[in-house]
Amino acid sequence: MAEKLSSLRSLMSSHSPPLHALIVPSEDYHQSEYVSDRDKRRQFISGFSGSAGLALITMNDARLWTDGRYFLQAEKELSDQWKLMRLGEDPAVEVWTADNLPEEAAIGIDPWSVSIDTAQRWERAFEKKQQKLVATSNNLVDQIWKDRPEAEANPVVVQPLEFAGRTVAEKLQDLRKKLMQEKAHSIIITALDEVAWLLNVRGSDVSYCPVVHAFAVVTLAATFFYVDQRKVSPEVLSYMKENKILVREYTQVSADVDLLAANQLVSSLSFNAAEDKAASGSTSELDYRFIWMDPRSCCYALYSKLKSDKVLLQQSPLALAKALKNPSEMEGLKKAHVRDGAAVVQFLVWLDKQMQELYGAPGYFSEAETERKKPSEAQILTEVSVSDKLEGYRASKEHFRGLSFPTISSVGPNAAIIHYGPNPQNCAEMDPDQIYLFDSGAQYQDGTTDITRTVHFGKPSAHEKACYTGVLKGHIALDVARFPKGTNGHALDILARVPLWKNGLDYRHGTGHGIGSYLNVHEGPHLISFRPQAQNVPLQSSMTVTDEPGYYEDGNFGIRLENVLIVNEANTKFNFGDRGYLEFEHITWAPYQHKLIDLNLLTPEEISWVNEYHSRCREILSPYMNEAENEMAWLTKATKPIEVTLSY
Amino acid sequence: MAEKLSSLRSLMSSHSPPLHALIVPSEDYHQSEYVSDRDKRRQFISGFSGSAGLALITMNDARLWTDGRYFLQAEKELSDQWKLMRLGEDPAVEVWTADNLPEEAAIGIDPWSVSIDTAQRWERAFEKKQQKLVATSNNLVDQIWKDRPEAEANPVVVQPLEFAGRTVAEKLQDLRKKLMQEKAHSIIITALDEVAWLLNVRGSDVSYCPVVHAFAVVTLAATFFYVDQRKVSPEVLSYMKENKILVREYTQVSADVDLLAANQLVSSLSFNAAEDKAASGSTSELDYRFIWMDPRSCCYALYSKLKSDKVLLQQSPLALAKALKNPSEMEGLKKAHVRDGAAVVQFLVWLDKQMQELYGAPGYFSEAETERKKPSEAQILTEVSVSDKLEGYRASKEHFRGLSFPTISSVGPNAAIIHYGPNPQNCAEMDPDQIYLFDSGAQYQDGTTDITRTVHFGKPSAHEKACYTGVLKGHIALDVARFPKGTNGHALDILARVPLWKNGLDYRHGTGHGIGSYLNVHEGPHLISFRPQAQNVPLQSSMTVTDEPGYYEDGNFGIRLENVLIVNEANTKFNFGDRGYLEFEHITWAPYQHKLIDLNLLTPEEISWVNEYHSRCREILSPYMNEAENEMAWLTKATKPIEVTLSY
Repeated sequence: MAEKLSSLRSLMSSHSPPLHALIVPSEDYHQSEYVSDRDKRRQFISGFSGSAGLALITMNDARLWTDGRYFLQAEKELSDQWKLMRLGEDPAVEVWTADNLPEEAAIGIDPWSVSIDTAQRWERAFEKKQQKLVATSNNLVDQIWKDRPEAEANPVVVQPLEFAGRTVAEKLQDLRKKLMQEKAHSIIITALDEVAWLLNVRGSDVSYCPVVHAFAVVTLAATFFYVDQRKVSPEVLSYMKENKILVREYTQVSADVDLLAANQLVSSLSFNAAEDKAASGSTSELDYRFIWMDPRSCCYALYSKLKSDKVLLQQSPLALAKALKNPSEMEGLKKAHVRDGAAVVQFLVWLDKQMQELYGAPGYFSEAETERKKPSEAQILTEVSVSDKLEGYRASKEHFRGLSFPTISSVGPNAAIIHYGPNPQNCAEMDPDQIYLFDSGAQYQDGTTDITRTVHFGKPSAHEKACYTGVLKGHIALDVARFPKGTNGHALDILARVPLWKNGLDYRHGTGHGIGSYLNVHEGPHLISFRPQAQNVPLQSSMTVTDEPGYYEDGNFGIRLENVLIVNEANTKFNFGDRGYLEFEHITWAPYQHKLIDLNLLTPEEISWVNEYHSRCREILSPYMNEAENEMAWLTKATKPIEVTLSY
Repeated sequence: MAEKLSSLRSLMSSHSPPLHALIVPSEDYHQSEYVSDRDKRRQFISGFSGSAGLALITMNDARLWTDGRYFLQAEKELSDQWKLMRLGEDPAVEVWTADNLPEEAAIGIDPWSVSIDTAQRWERAFEKKQQKLVATSNNLVDQIWKDRPEAEANPVVVQPLEFAGRTVAEKLQDLRKKLMQEKAHSIIITALDEVAWLLNVRGSDVSYCPVVHAFAVVTLAATFFYVDQRKVSPEVLSYMKENKILVREYTQVSADVDLLAANQLVSSLSFNAAEDKAASGSTSELDYRFIWMDPRSCCYALYSKLKSDKVLLQQSPLALAKALKNPSEMEGLKKAHVRDGAAVVQFLVWLDKQMQELYGAPGYFSEAETERKKPSEAQILTEVSVSDKLEGYRASKEHFRGLSFPTISSVGPNAAIIHYGPNPQNCAEMDPDQIYLFDSGAQYQDGTTDITRTVHFGKPSAHEKACYTGVLKGHIALDVARFPKGTNGHALDILARVPLWKNGLDYRHGTGHGIGSYLNVHEGPHLISFRPQAQNVPLQSSMTVTDEPGYYEDGNFGIRLENVLIVNEANTKFNFGDRGYLEFEHITWAPYQHKLIDLNLLTPEEISWVNEYHSRCREILSPYMNEAENEMAWLTKATKPIEVTLSY
């Protein structure tokens, strides 16, 4: 590790200008949340393997910034050459740099690895002491990374229209309309899911995300797709030609943006785009002054090539277009969630049996005391082994293409770690007397899933039940909300919290995120959260969003319940203000565990909601239930209506 | 009217520099919501009598801007020399001015009548065409206003410590601590309720608000009170002396702020303030650079005397200090609300009897059909006559000092007009078959009240009941909320709306405002509202806030239910995040009408809430009930527990 730092420092010294510091962020050249192994530069240099973090190396210092989820892990993984900087406690990297590095210091960054927004924020902070952010012409980490994984050459696959729902031509036409509305003649698209969605292609360059490492540039007249050409089969190439998409080498995006800046990219067209121009209704190219870039996803390297008064820095129009699912995408999502729910139920049936047979648990339905057994070494169930089993059930389903994120499979205290990821070396063994929380999802060719359920195979405590019921109440309150158009996810967030707040409980994460159509499991631009950015985009009909309140008790247990919702027009009795109203429809199907519900804490309306949900679960999942495994009997029991009589 | 405009225009022409336009706002020199008659300059010049609006007069044009509440009224009241500008539809005054007046135009304003914030916003808009905002040295409207009411000379009254709860010395000490924290050596206080609160004085210069027309300047060493000295009795003067408050003529504030700007105000002290300085812990005056002014309440006239780099433009520290009620204020508020609730119940008993006897209504408790009668001319009940009766019941109570705002007393369609104010000439007659909404409050020496109830003395429709019940559900949902410290009124607002949204209903106003302690009925700095400013101030323990959702159906009826709540520490079972949790306590007491509640729409929890509320009402108000009038029997019936058995 020390060797890496000293090699890097000699590169920094010999750089022109010499660098006082080098920043190494987590993100790849597309500001992705998940990155491929060869893009894990920050992990290579620092040893810290968490998903979020940023390294800063000076001549005599090395610091790593990360957030609260990773403090423990970072302390363990960082060598003593590194100092951990705690986000929220220690100063931010740009503040620390401005305060601790000399006047006029040069701070290096690979400009491909940082967004426009971030680079500009740093530059403003550095002005205080006339420090400069210096773009390195090569990535210095790559230069010292001897055994860096090879660039992947996974094939680009066309997403069939049956699932994509809209043709590339239609999507491009919509996009060009938006460009013209904003007086833009072109847009540079760097977010991998936006490129994949726009061109109706998928890939396997990044774990969990079916995307291709690629850029796209769309002008009013032409469409460019920058990708490692080894990934493009003759069939895909002809698909691109049909759609008038020019396929170019990944690295050529740099030179092409230079041409774009000089207004010369269009002249290199290899086919006549006059017809597109006519279709777009453009009368004069002079009307369109701007090149559109999304400041949160586009890299600083490409932005730096352009005159700032020619750039429109604004959220990409593809973010919202992608979030509004078309009818085929919606149908696919619903079908994928049925298959996924079936896999979850099959997993629960299997796990219930194992926990009883191997561990002496009373099981999913009973609150008897556990009569502890010890399984043989070979039979031991761990967080990892059971999550592999869950993956197996999913893999047996039609259109399965992989998981949509690393499964959170967590027993007892591990369930209190919101982003817990078990690993085979040191994960916990299943325990019949502790809560088990699993948050998981899959990529199916027709849709992406994300579901969390929390279960107990022994005798849960009254406190665990009360907390589970509080979370369930919040989960239901959001599910049943109706709201006027224009309402954003910041306003709705409180609905899921108020039932928990009643008892002084809460959770330190947002309540919901958008989800892709066989794309990223986390998708914007909307959000249900207390964070201010959730105010930026109102919820709109045909969006997807998760409903996932939780409660986490450090060292004891964690609870989370998560369904995927879609936003629909609501057929309200009245329509005050003529704005129109919206409501949610849940598309996730797997039972809530009766045993964990304290019925005294539910209102009759909430009990009806649970009964109705369970009845639909039974109906929808029954075709998938395997008689040989008694799955249907289990499901019927798990979804039996709750009967209560209340007197006041 | 035409004469007024032409006189004004000659003053504008002869002004130096000549004015292209003159702006006449609604507000007085203290940016008050309610103003005295002699400050109704905008009404004098335009004829429009609404509470909000702004006039702009040019050489050949006269325009009045007002908001949606007043479009109809303004159309009726404005002569054909005036054009109505509709806020939200037409351009704002500064935009219209910039667009329609010539380059370098001079736009006159009495700089005492406009806040710093507003004047600066106008100036920025005027820059577009190098137009200038010109401060007139006199108020031009006053110059042509022949029969302008005399300046009032109502006595300043000391608010006894028993009600004020904290001495002036304590309040001044707190204030000076805050000045020092912000490096300020002084503060200019212009908001009338802030002056009254700080100095523990009250007055009667403005209808509904027990305030004195006055300014205050507080430096680290001295306190100045600027007031018409005719209002100050020898007793009050000696109270001021005891408290080391220098009493000066109202108009002298102008010259004194000049001295303050030159750092010479302190030298004119008439008694030794060294002891105050020592107490404040100030070691060097040089540490304190700023003069603090609240940009939303301080006038531009005083601001213009100061160098802008010497001014701290920030919300007055008195806004929050005044909002956090001390134990004596809290006790007074609670007691005042009990007396006020008793008056409301007595009014309802009386009205119920009248409606049955005079109009043949089945009455408050029955849903039988009305057997219509016609009262004699002398017996007719109108919106105004019944609200006078209500005032009478209040006036009979201890510590009554007047109403806290003009009573909204509204029958049927008038109840749909949110800020309806009936007048004796053309108000509606009471109607046994229509909803009656009354929103009213009083000033008692120990507290200010504000309550709304909606009742029906005949047979309400199923739709009216459903809407009433929706409003009640929202009203209860906010009342029972618990929330972590740091939560603001923007987040909570949705809780009162969600039950209405369910059926596509909503209301176009905020859900709650703060309320003073024998001061203004509308008080900041907090708010429960969808408006962004409600995000600025979190709710805090010992604040007051109203809970008043509604529903308004144009041309048919309106419903609103309003209680005053106080914010308390909540004794939650847990305390996740160690932030502490808050909850509300209602201090308003008057029944909800059973007949208007559709029990099928309430949850058992909501029914329990109503029963519990009613039981407390009965208990708390019973000492005030007059046996001769059968008031206790009526109250007992009105607060009878609802019994329901539900089976699921």
